Parts: sequence; C-alpha cells; structure tokens
Amino acid sequence: MVFKIHNTLNEVILVIDIGGTSYKGALVNKDGEIIYRYKIKAADYGSKEKFLSAIFDLISKLNIKAKINNQKVIAMSFSIPGAIDTEHGIIKYSNNLDLENLNFKKELIDKYKNIPIFMLNDANAATLGEARKGIAKDYANVVFLTLGTGVGGGIIINHKLYAGSQFMGAELGHMSIDINGKLCTCGRKGCFEAYASARALVNYTKEGLNKYKDSKMWREINNDINNINGSVSFETLKKYPNDFGAKEVVNKYIKYLSEGILNYCNIFRPDIILIGGGVSEQGDYLVNLINDYCKNYNYGFKSTPIPLIKTATLKNDAGIIGAAYFALENLK
Amino acid sequence: MVFKIHNTLNEVILVIDIGGTSYKGALVNKDGEIIYRYKIKAADYGSKEKFLSAIFDLISKLNIKAKINNQKVIAMSFSIPGAIDTEHGIIKYSNNLDLENLNFKKELIDKYKNIPIFMLNDANAATLGEARKGIAKDYANVVFLTLGTGVGGGIIINHKLYAGSQFMGAELGHMSIDINGKLCTCGRKGCFEAYASARALVNYTKEGLNKYKDSKMWREINNDINNINGSVSFETLKKYPNDFGAKEVVNKYIKYLSEGILNYCNIFRPDIILIGGGVSEQGDYLVNLINDYCKNYNYGFKSTPIPLIKTATLKNDAGIIGAAYFALENLK
Repeated sequence: MVFKIHNTLNEVILVIDIGGTSYKGALVNKDGEIIYRYKIKAADYGSKEKFLSAIFDLISKLNIKAKINNQKVIAMSFSIPGAIDTEHGIIKYSNNLDLENLNFKKELIDKYKNIPIFMLNDANAATLGEARKGIAKDYANVVFLTLGTGVGGGIIINHKLYAGSQFMGAELGHMSIDINGKLCTCGRKGCFEAYASARALVNYTKEGLNKYKDSKMWREINNDINNINGSVSFETLKKYPNDFGAKEVVNKYIKYLSEGILNYCNIFRPDIILIGGGVSEQGDYLVNLINDYCKNYNYGFKSTPIPLIKTATLKNDAGIIGAAYFALENLK
Repeated sequence: MVFKIHNTLNEVILVIDIGGTSYKGALVNKDGEIIYRYKIKAADYGSKEKFLSAIFDLISKLNIKAKINNQKVIAMSFSIPGAIDTEHGIIKYSNNLDLENLNFKKELIDKYKNIPIFMLNDANAATLGEARKGIAKDYANVVFLTLGTGVGGGIIINHKLYAGSQFMGAELGHMSIDINGKLCTCGRKGCFEAYASARALVNYTKEGLNKYKDSKMWREINNDINNINGSVSFETLKKYPNDFGAKEVVNKYIKYLSEGILNYCNIFRPDIILIGGGVSEQGDYLVNLINDYCKNYNYGFKSTPIPLIKTATLKNDAGIIGAAYFALENLK
C-alpha cells in the first residue's frame, strides 16, 4: 500500500469580506471551500484606527483557529467596497467605510510580515467567486450585475476577471441609459444605477402606492409605508397578476433593468449574464420577465441569441470565495 | 561568414478588405507590412454569384502577383462588413453587401484547397490592426470607436481581440444612451450610433443651417445644401470660433459622443480609447473637445484619470493589416 502525503492539504487562505455593517472572516481551502467562519460587527464608520484595530483582531481570531486546526495560512485576501487600488493595496475611496486613501497593504505588511496580501473591490470578488464556484463556472465570458442599494458589477473575459486600468473599470452601474435623465450620485445623469437599483425599485413602489390607493401592494405592507422594500411589488404581482399598481411598478423596473442588460448584451455578447444582490431573490420570476422584454430588442438582426440570464447562486459567500481565488490565482 | 537562411521571408497573407463600394486586395508580410495592393470595384449589390466571382478574380490576381514575386501565400484572410460568424466562416448578414447566410468559407475551400482561411467583421479587423501596428500597439486594453455612417467598434482586452460569444459582441454603436430617444435602425431607441455617427452629425448640421441663416456654415457649403458633410460645422468653428450655429452643432455632437465615451470609460476603464472613421479626421481638435467635456463627468470620484483618447493612425489600411494579423495569430 502506498501512502500519499498531501503537504498542501492544510493550506488555507485567510479571507475577510469587509462590509458597511459587518466584517466576515473565513478560512478557505485550496478548493475554494469555506472551512471556518467568524463574523464581527463593523467598526465605527470613518475611523481609520478603529477600522484597522477591528481587522487586526479578526485576523488574530482566524490565525488562532488555523493554528488549532493545524492549518497553514498561505495568504490573506480582502474583499472591500469602493475604489480599491488592487496593485498597490490602497483603499482609494470607500463610501461604505468612509475611508479615503488608506494604504491598507502597508498597515498589514508592517504587522504581518512574510505573508502575501491581496485585496480587491467587493463586486469583483463576488464576480470571481461566481465564476469559479457558482453558476457561471463553465462559461468563458460573464457579466455579473448586483442589484442592491446601488448597481455594481464585474466582468469575466475568457475565464479571467477583467477590471480595467488600475482596477477601476467594471463600474457597470455607471453607464448612462438616459443622458438627460435622473441625476446619479456620481454626478452624471441617467446612470443605470439610478434606474435599476433596489433603491430605485423602492421609489417606484412608493410612487405606485401613492397613485393606486386600492392596490394590493398596500396589503403587502400592512398599510404601513415603513414596510416598503424591493420585494413588495413583485410579491403582490405574483399573488394578484391583475393588480394595476404592482404591474406598473414591476413593468417600469423591468424596462429599465432590461434596457441596461440589452446594452451589455450588445457590448459584450457574454455567454451568461448573472444577476445578484437583493432583487435577485425574485429568481426565475425576474429572469422570465427580463427575457420577455429583451427578446424583442436584442441586436443582431433578431438572429443572435440573447445570452443566458441567471440569478447568482453563492449569495453572501461569493465575495469570500472570490477573494480566496484571487489570492490562489495570483500567488507566485 | 555565416549565411542565415530565412525560409519564411517570402511568406505572405493574402488579404481582402471587402467594402460596400470596393474590394481592396493586398499581400501582407509577416511583419504586418502591405507589400502589394490591388483594388477592384464592388460587385453588384445583393448578387451572391457576382460577389463570389469578383472575389475569385481578385484572389487570382493576388496569387499571380505572389508567384511572380516568389512569395508563398500561407493563408487568406477577409475583413467583411456585417455579422460574420468567424468560427464557421459564414456571412450571417451584411447590410452593406446585401448578403445573408452565405457559407463563404465553404465556397473558398471548394476552390482553394489546403489553404487556411480566416474572416472577421471589418470593425474587429480594424481594431486588431490598430492594436498591432497603429497608435494603440503599446496598450493592453483598448476601446476602438469608428464614427462613420454608423458607429462601429472593437475591443482589445489584455492585448487580445475580444468579440464575445459567436463573435457577435462589440456592437459598440448599439448601446442605448437615451432609452426613450431616437429610433435606431436596429429597432431599439436611443442607440449611441443614432447620436454620434457621421450621419447624425450631418443631421445636426442641417438643423443648424436651417436655424441660423447667418451662420458662416452657409459659406462653408457655398450656400448649397448638397455640399453638407460631417466636417462643415467643425471647419466653420475652427475659422470662426464665435459662430453660433457651428458652435451649437459641434457642442451637441460632442455632448452625445462624449457621453458614450464616458460610458465606455466606466465600463472598461481602458488604457486608450481610439477614434476612427470619417469624423476622426478632425484629429486633436476633436480629441480636445471630448476631453474638455469628459473631465467633469468621469467616474471614480474625480480621482480616476480619463483614459487617453487618440485618433486612429492606420486609416484605410487598418482592416487589411488587422485581417492579416488575425490569420497570423490563429495559424497553427
């Protein structure tokens, strides 16, 4: 009998998925499997010292756990919201963390010598996660759209993450679809984000409720306007397919969302368009409505197939898994 | 003294750049240099037989010339306007040639056995040409926009041509920038092409002439509306910087063009955006106006540099050179 010795079996990546409300720590093995998790509350908004101190604490917890498990941490990797200079390891600007120009890599290297450190924008991390372990894993060219408070995204070209010069591309929410339209937070008018985010959907729902006092959407929110969220119009329409108010809200949202998706079809003609974020919880119901809208406007003389549209599968783990793969694939 | 024998010195690619009005034949060496050219008038619009017969004639001329020059034709490559199935060698649809579902590769193979045959869409060919021998050759990520009758384009990602699934992507003119706006020939509303093509510019110029009867643009066209072309407003404004009519036309065009360019900045954050086609003859004058517009709206919290914008350099040779490189890089 031959005993194979797998020296690398116990090697793990220490990953932290940094969000506005919590920091999710994890140990991930080389197959992209999360083998340990530890989550802490986010530090006070805007304090660089408290941010770093909380991250260092979480790293210690994860390192101790790895030691107990007899695992070797071969790299650290961070998924971070905002404009992240991946090459130099700098948080250039993060609205969610209220941090600007923080040389995060230097702070980490000063404390943890001799361990490779990686970081990337959270939408890019989630995209890579979906492309490696999620529903997009068999496709070469992927466009990933996250429909949350804003609209984020990521691009996979020929199985590789594409993030543009200085990792500053793939700002898929900031494509204007109405250059004389709504003002976006970025300063331009008509950005896709201003029309297709969950926030926009909530606004359409408010308008619909005000316009249709007899809509069943009122029942969905128990007549309390504070209960509005992105699922109200969809859930109402599923139960009452003839409800005018819910139909108007959903149709409006689907129109804007689909027009942006059509743009990305024509630009990238990807193998698959993946939808994540809160709105993606509508699953196939959402996908069918998008396909119904798109089939009449797809470019290519009606002969080009609409790319496959699917909702993302890894949910909240996408960023952790993607950050782990980013380290694994860039380790020398 | 040692004599080096370069067996490959005389190897050439036979290239035909097929256009709506002429077919430009060429022999291109392995350094991407055009060493022989022969141009013929396009065959009658819409006749498959006449199209093939004209192409076969041109191939014969080029083959004879190669023989005389003691050159070996190692591949044939075609740059073709329209929806081209590069993989299977099919002209799926070409508005400019009025051809549909022509199995061009099969026709060629039947006649010219044992020679590798390549074909690709003309905008993709031009993009590859500019990326190999033109001004974009030192950049990894390139967005190329051709502003002609329509708006075409091509994408280079990590030094490679990216054309999407079935080579049907990079339809950069068919990104809607005003989803409730002008109807485009593709059936959607508000496509970039409908606002930023040379044809759109001519329309703005007509409107400007009608609105401003005292504009110096009238002098530029010798008071004859038949002399309108895409350069009238620009040429007038260069000579008379205070001409209201010319200024309004140019500002309108620059606004639409720049909004589309800003979208491509945010999506791709390329290293360089290259502008070709008729409008690009305005050179630095055009580029400066685009940069002036873009600098206030560039995403990235004003901290991200606007990608370098330049006008293309290879002009009418871009497609020939690109098609040659496409063959060279895909030959086994």
